[in-house]
Amino acid sequence: MPTSAQPHGKRPGHPKGADHDRLGVVGGLSALSLDAMASIAYGPEAIVLVLALAGSAALGYTLPVTVAIALLLAVLTVSYRQVIAAFPTGGGAYGVSKTYLGRPAALVAGASLIIDYVLNVAVSVAAGVAALTSAFPELLPYRVVLCLVVLALITGINLRGIARSARAFITPTVVYIGAIMLVIVVGLIRGSPAVAHHGHHVQAVETVGVFLLLRAFANGCVALTGVEAIANAVPSFKDPRVRHAQRAEVALGALLATMLIGVGVLIEKFSIGPVPGVTVLSQVTEASLGDGPLYYLVQFTTVILLALAANTSFGGLPVLAHLLAKDDNLPHLFALRAERQVHRYGIAFLAVTAALLLVVAEGEMNLLVPLFAIGVFIGFTLSQFGMVKHWLTSRPAGWHYKAALNGTGGFLTGAAAIVITVTKVGEGGWLIVIALPLLVAGMEGVNRAYARFAVRLQVGEVPTPPRPRRSVVVVPVHTVNRLTHDALAVALSLGDRVVAVNVTHPDDEGEAHAFVEQWERWDPGVELVQVFDPRFRTAEPLITYVTGLRESHVLVLIAEIQPEHRWQAILKNQRGAIIAAALRRTDVVICRMRFRVGDRPPGPPHA
Amino acid sequence: MPTSAQPHGKRPGHPKGADHDRLGVVGGLSALSLDAMASIAYGPEAIVLVLALAGSAALGYTLPVTVAIALLLAVLTVSYRQVIAAFPTGGGAYGVSKTYLGRPAALVAGASLIIDYVLNVAVSVAAGVAALTSAFPELLPYRVVLCLVVLALITGINLRGIARSARAFITPTVVYIGAIMLVIVVGLIRGSPAVAHHGHHVQAVETVGVFLLLRAFANGCVALTGVEAIANAVPSFKDPRVRHAQRAEVALGALLATMLIGVGVLIEKFSIGPVPGVTVLSQVTEASLGDGPLYYLVQFTTVILLALAANTSFGGLPVLAHLLAKDDNLPHLFALRAERQVHRYGIAFLAVTAALLLVVAEGEMNLLVPLFAIGVFIGFTLSQFGMVKHWLTSRPAGWHYKAALNGTGGFLTGAAAIVITVTKVGEGGWLIVIALPLLVAGMEGVNRAYARFAVRLQVGEVPTPPRPRRSVVVVPVHTVNRLTHDALAVALSLGDRVVAVNVTHPDDEGEAHAFVEQWERWDPGVELVQVFDPRFRTAEPLITYVTGLRESHVLVLIAEIQPEHRWQAILKNQRGAIIAAALRRTDVVICRMRFRVGDRPPGPPHA
Repeated sequence: MPTSAQPHGKRPGHPKGADHDRLGVVGGLSALSLDAMASIAYGPEAIVLVLALAGSAALGYTLPVTVAIALLLAVLTVSYRQVIAAFPTGGGAYGVSKTYLGRPAALVAGASLIIDYVLNVAVSVAAGVAALTSAFPELLPYRVVLCLVVLALITGINLRGIARSARAFITPTVVYIGAIMLVIVVGLIRGSPAVAHHGHHVQAVETVGVFLLLRAFANGCVALTGVEAIANAVPSFKDPRVRHAQRAEVALGALLATMLIGVGVLIEKFSIGPVPGVTVLSQVTEASLGDGPLYYLVQFTTVILLALAANTSFGGLPVLAHLLAKDDNLPHLFALRAERQVHRYGIAFLAVTAALLLVVAEGEMNLLVPLFAIGVFIGFTLSQFGMVKHWLTSRPAGWHYKAALNGTGGFLTGAAAIVITVTKVGEGGWLIVIALPLLVAGMEGVNRAYARFAVRLQVGEVPTPPRPRRSVVVVPVHTVNRLTHDALAVALSLGDRVVAVNVTHPDDEGEAHAFVEQWERWDPGVELVQVFDPRFRTAEPLITYVTGLRESHVLVLIAEIQPEHRWQAILKNQRGAIIAAALRRTDVVICRMRFRVGDRPPGPPHA
Repeated sequence: MPTSAQPHGKRPGHPKGADHDRLGVVGGLSALSLDAMASIAYGPEAIVLVLALAGSAALGYTLPVTVAIALLLAVLTVSYRQVIAAFPTGGGAYGVSKTYLGRPAALVAGASLIIDYVLNVAVSVAAGVAALTSAFPELLPYRVVLCLVVLALITGINLRGIARSARAFITPTVVYIGAIMLVIVVGLIRGSPAVAHHGHHVQAVETVGVFLLLRAFANGCVALTGVEAIANAVPSFKDPRVRHAQRAEVALGALLATMLIGVGVLIEKFSIGPVPGVTVLSQVTEASLGDGPLYYLVQFTTVILLALAANTSFGGLPVLAHLLAKDDNLPHLFALRAERQVHRYGIAFLAVTAALLLVVAEGEMNLLVPLFAIGVFIGFTLSQFGMVKHWLTSRPAGWHYKAALNGTGGFLTGAAAIVITVTKVGEGGWLIVIALPLLVAGMEGVNRAYARFAVRLQVGEVPTPPRPRRSVVVVPVHTVNRLTHDALAVALSLGDRVVAVNVTHPDDEGEAHAFVEQWERWDPGVELVQVFDPRFRTAEPLITYVTGLRESHVLVLIAEIQPEHRWQAILKNQRGAIIAAALRRTDVVICRMRFRVGDRPPGPPHA
């Protein structure tokens, strides 16, 4: 048999049009890195809060801890640069785990990333709105509504494509980076703080010790969330994808490390400690730039970026869900793409779950901020250990050092994950402990169901050639008009046999007789069967009739009017919908045709 | 052509089974009269409240006003008894107006009845719950939820059929009638009140005048709402319907008049006036039976019946909507009946609108209590004047008196309607003034739309005989498996030509090649067309292809898996649903077949 390929649009192999919807390096930063870069707003704060428990003296450890985090960041950046090259179809930690650590580990990696992405959206939007309501307290009662509005905006932009979201958010990204750099540079140049601050003396409630430093380190690691997003979404980059993604990853690492260390230096320089109701970043900004308009600009930009950090999840999760679906671990609908390569179902899932979280928590997200770090760090750990195995298997030049680097990084992130989970288990860590296994179990269940379907569908075998068999077309009728005529014309063109079925009820005898009279006057040449149902049912009598037919293929042809205006849909008598819904329990083929009842004057019927 | 009638169940003409779902006289009282009988709880109260404005002396007019209302009740009962005989298909005021007063009046009658029914449900449920929360104030915050629960219960019972609702509510009805009769009889026998009451001296703020008495009469007329319900729902009665319905109507009139006059006599006898927070009926009960357990029984029964008064609307509105739909004034789906003759869509509409009203008003229905009287009285007036015309046209024996009776009744009810509207326009009467014309305009619009459809459908004309034409069946494919085989087998049994269409995207080249290889290895004898879409769309390339086909009848056969368990529906890849939804804009016939993927082991394919 001839198979003809009729391409529409450009020939396969040169999808230049597709690149317009993809990301360059700057776009990658804007679409996928805001999560990581927004960490500047709360990462240093988390470190300072923990260290302050041991008094003002312990605050001197802020910079060393920050530098340690920056080193870990460097390890992660290098590691993920390699992951990008090894897994150009994306997936990040999921791809690495699947290849080197086995399916169970891969499911854990996938599930933890999903949890992280969902929490990130909710937390980011809530944090942005929280900063807004701090500035304008009269908006506080509308907090949840504001969160949902912001979420809807970001979702809407992402539904128009990841490249569009990247373009939309480039300006805030660039302004933010510039603002933070300005704060750092000016602060480094300055001799003394622009605004003399309160100089709280912090009371020590603990002693400085290894565990305290470890906690400070672990809490500060929340600044590293989002570093993996670029590796998850490599397919979203322009060709050559690997190189663009790698450059974006390195750019992100460099920017983030610079900003982290810069802020850490300023914290030390200006002896900044925790002040209730005032963030550490705002103190640094105030000390560096004074409390004039520049200060408010930086604050405003931070608010915007906190909310837009949610965008990272919209860039990462749909691609991850696509890969999981292609491996039969998630419903296949996540693998569908729409116009502009938008993964509609992944985006919708993300928006809906985040909205639910926001509503349930009433926008109170402070406790959940460190939680999404747990999911990300599980992913970090699995991907690093997976890469260790990658080096052990492939053994390229200098593999010892690479394996050692990844191994150390893996241990560090693993330790951080454990510390965060243990310290936060009461405040919400239990959520992760429960949700993660549930999600993994869910994906296992999906995978098993698809395996069973594949057996039933005889996937992989070559079927026998299809052969035609006797068919009958059943047409439900109740009046004689143009619609009936058209339906019978289609039915006669299809089946070997056509039967018109009219269901009658008590109280309808007059109408039933009139119908038969009209039918006999018309004489369409089609067999008419009347089925009487004393129980006034519409669909069941028809089902009883069709299940009694002996042909191999039974079709029921349902013809309905198609009104011109949308509101007129209510005028349809629903009989067709009721019959179609009831027939779904059977094995018949349900065919529906539409007869337009617009304002066009009626022409001659198909003769 | 032979037409064969294959009856299932009993033969037409002897639908004995249907009568089981219909009402007898007592059932008619229980299903359709609670609205009227619950008026005892607030009718006399309304009279007393108005008269009290002119001081204690004016309260002496209570009994005369009550007797006047009872006389009007007698006129209405006789009148509706005649309406029932003249319109055995139901509709009440709508039927009368349609026949004798023209379509615009009929639409006004129908719309006012609908508004009344909806308001009645909301007001009754709210009144019952309000009485409950007066007895148990701790339930007050849950008022709206309680209203919705009660509404859901009544709706649920009615969805199982009007006869079932009648049977369910017979006991409360009988107990209520018995309780009120007990109060009246004991009160008449007693010399002095069982509980000496406070004897408030009411300050006069107005003088007794004709207008005051008219207002008292008009407000008291709220006791007459519900009298029309039986005439609206004659088809719901057992055969002989007219006789059963007439008996029920007379029984209702007699009971209601007795109770009204009885309570009125007791109000006068025990000199009862308005007391804040205590209803007139409860004062009468207390005076008659004391404040022991009998008092609480009467109160409790009244609460139950107030809530169940909503049931009258569930009995009346669906039948009315059915008639309106048959006349093309409402969407035809209101004419559909389900198992046990339940008008599902009418009941659902009533439940939903009442629920919305309850939620919006937060259960605060006191102001709306008299409003639904307006709609009913418009109906009364139109039906009485319609009957006058009926007598003028048919002129049976004694038509002078009958016409005079109905004419007087019509003027009285018309005056009452005007007085109520004018006095209550600020407190919500404007709602009726706006809603009624809107509803009438809506029904006009529906009617015009159906008239246009009828022109397009060439209703009333005999069509030409239907002729078969060339057809093509398009089958979207993307893998080679058992499902594909079965779909092609069906397609080959149907159309003159079969085409398999495979939509490919960039990034899918590997899959596309593998598919073509499998297809050629299979060699099913069906033409395969590949359509490339660089924009990753699922449905649009297919639509472009099918709209380019030249056959007269184009079918698209969509085959999908049908999982065994309901939760597995999420595992379907949605491609079929997307394609079907998109194809609805076109003129192709959309056919859907299902392939069961249960746990049954795979058998040999249809060879």
